[in-house]
Amino acid sequence: MTTIFQKIIDGDIPCHRVFENEHVLAFLDVAPLSKGHTLVIPKERVASLHELSPESGAALGFALVKVANAIVRATGTAEYNILQNNGALANQAVFHVHFHIIPKPSGQEGLSMDWNPQEFVDGEHLAESIRNAI
Amino acid sequence: MTTIFQKIIDGDIPCHRVFENEHVLAFLDVAPLSKGHTLVIPKERVASLHELSPESGAALGFALVKVANAIVRATGTAEYNILQNNGALANQAVFHVHFHIIPKPSGQEGLSMDWNPQEFVDGEHLAESIRNAI
Repeated sequence: MTTIFQKIIDGDIPCHRVFENEHVLAFLDVAPLSKGHTLVIPKERVASLHELSPESGAALGFALVKVANAIVRATGTAEYNILQNNGALANQAVFHVHFHIIPKPSGQEGLSMDWNPQEFVDGEHLAESIRNAI
Repeated sequence: MTTIFQKIIDGDIPCHRVFENEHVLAFLDVAPLSKGHTLVIPKERVASLHELSPESGAALGFALVKVANAIVRATGTAEYNILQNNGALANQAVFHVHFHIIPKPSGQEGLSMDWNPQEFVDGEHLAESIRNAI
């Protein structure tokens, strides 16, 4: 299925572009949680971050730093959240990888979250199983 | 001030390591929101993402893809959130850049967030001011 972000990449739908290079496109979110809310997306067409090539991942990380810096300077707000959702249960709505950069100018604007830690159990076994999967 | 993450990088405090290279370290969060909750941090010592070198940003993006892929395979959970907080107002608690990878195995576990969009106003002027700051 062609997502709305693919149509933006292809130029079939316009966007308020803030940055673009060979691998990455960044543009304003038109349903912002705060002023300056920006999306940074890879041109590679995959739904979830773990499906991306590491090269696209590197290009995204590079662009996140550049664009976050520009948003801080343009908005004057140095506090912000970066969020990237994978899967409907994790609040993903468009199934093309996208990072949100969401300025947090006040307690009322931007991203709000709950934080309910669990007990930490059997860490060394879990870390080993992740290491072995890399 | 030396943060707890700097002490982990320096080897003064142990961690459950899952990935490490010249630029990046990844280890389990000991107060997890869900099983497999992992932190990916740069070895470069800065508090906020926009202060990082673009090279560290690229190394983080590369590592996020590799580690997310390994977490999906080790936990069997393909849904997850990636979150990186900058500033106390934005829920940052340790002032060394860190990305959370938080598996979302169910509605009850992992990250929960509110999503309250604002009206989108004067997008082209705002996009231009961000473009000009890059």
